[in-house]
Amino acid sequence: MDIEDVKKAVAREALSFVEDDMIVGLGTGSTTAHFIRLLGKKVMEEELEIYGIPTSHQSRLLAIESGIPTVSMDEVDAIDLAVDGADEVDPELNLIKGRGAALTMEKIIEYRAGTFLVLVDESKLVERLGQKMPVPIEVIPAAWRAIAEELEVFNAEAELRMAVKKDGPVITDNGNFILDARFALIEDPLDMEMELNSIPGVVENGIFADIADVVLVGTPEGVRRLER
Amino acid sequence: MDIEDVKKAVAREALSFVEDDMIVGLGTGSTTAHFIRLLGKKVMEEELEIYGIPTSHQSRLLAIESGIPTVSMDEVDAIDLAVDGADEVDPELNLIKGRGAALTMEKIIEYRAGTFLVLVDESKLVERLGQKMPVPIEVIPAAWRAIAEELEVFNAEAELRMAVKKDGPVITDNGNFILDARFALIEDPLDMEMELNSIPGVVENGIFADIADVVLVGTPEGVRRLER
Repeated sequence: MDIEDVKKAVAREALSFVEDDMIVGLGTGSTTAHFIRLLGKKVMEEELEIYGIPTSHQSRLLAIESGIPTVSMDEVDAIDLAVDGADEVDPELNLIKGRGAALTMEKIIEYRAGTFLVLVDESKLVERLGQKMPVPIEVIPAAWRAIAEELEVFNAEAELRMAVKKDGPVITDNGNFILDARFALIEDPLDMEMELNSIPGVVENGIFADIADVVLVGTPEGVRRLER
Repeated sequence: MDIEDVKKAVAREALSFVEDDMIVGLGTGSTTAHFIRLLGKKVMEEELEIYGIPTSHQSRLLAIESGIPTVSMDEVDAIDLAVDGADEVDPELNLIKGRGAALTMEKIIEYRAGTFLVLVDESKLVERLGQKMPVPIEVIPAAWRAIAEELEVFNAEAELRMAVKKDGPVITDNGNFILDARFALIEDPLDMEMELNSIPGVVENGIFADIADVVLVGTPEGVRRLER
């Protein structure tokens, strides 16, 4: 079983959380992309009344391509379910997200979802957040250098994320920059999430503490389910 | 003495804080506009080496017009002084700002200034923040409705700020919306400032707790000086 098959198996399992008439937040990234495609099929085959709320241009384009009608956050009264990947998951189901640079819209939607379902393979499980991955931080462009320096207070080393298919830095869907901050230690994720957001110029950060409800973990032996 | 004369008197007094070779944050609004014009004159007359860091398109245009060379936040190592107005000032020198919708860039710059000098007339002094003015909150557009509803938890009623010279909502210099939130009571400004910033979709809010160093208050009898 290669990694893509594991991702597909997790995405297939996620379909069981979807019911008719749901408003579903659509995450960003490769595992979620499998989910969106499978969801499109299910919607057509079972003639479901599902609306998707995309968290990025990527997921919006894919939803359209997959035949899932989309709506915006401010057109709905509630979001029933949100499905997304993660870069790291700790034992309390706190997450690091933002490799795809969509963390702000993801958090806006997933924070407000009735159920937030996370899809990962087992390489994403860590003992402590920050162990493998930096924390992506979306910042107002003019403030990037000041914030990068100030992160030293938290024992973090930050780098401006550079683009590959354009010159210069990555620009988010909101028109901002991304700092990738490597922490020596993140003792209290919820506290660090709040601290980072209180730095002027920080729009949002990639620590998602205390909001995941269920994590489906893909392994070569099958899909494991973690709950809070 | 009419209100414009009072504002000009305060702006003139603020000039005494400016020294040669300083990097000066340039606030937004009518009182600060007087300051920027006077500063331009002073720079030319005394041949000073001053660079301005604008907090908005408004202050940038005015700085250029006034002959003050401008730089961006990420070109300098430190900001010596920032000068700006406020909508409310409480006895501990906590502020509400953001009537001009420039609160995010203002906070980015003023938070990092060696000295943050605030210019107001005495109508802006209040016993408690929120007494007269709503707190402006800059939000990612898609999240405005959800945030407006969630502010009820804090006993606040929020309204989307509508534009006058364009159809639809005001768009900030960062491309976002402004919610004006009327609070029944703001007990602890520093705490409320942090709480608001931890709501996903909030970019920044107009409570500026604990960062003003000096407030110059214009009155018909002269300029009073408040310090922390």
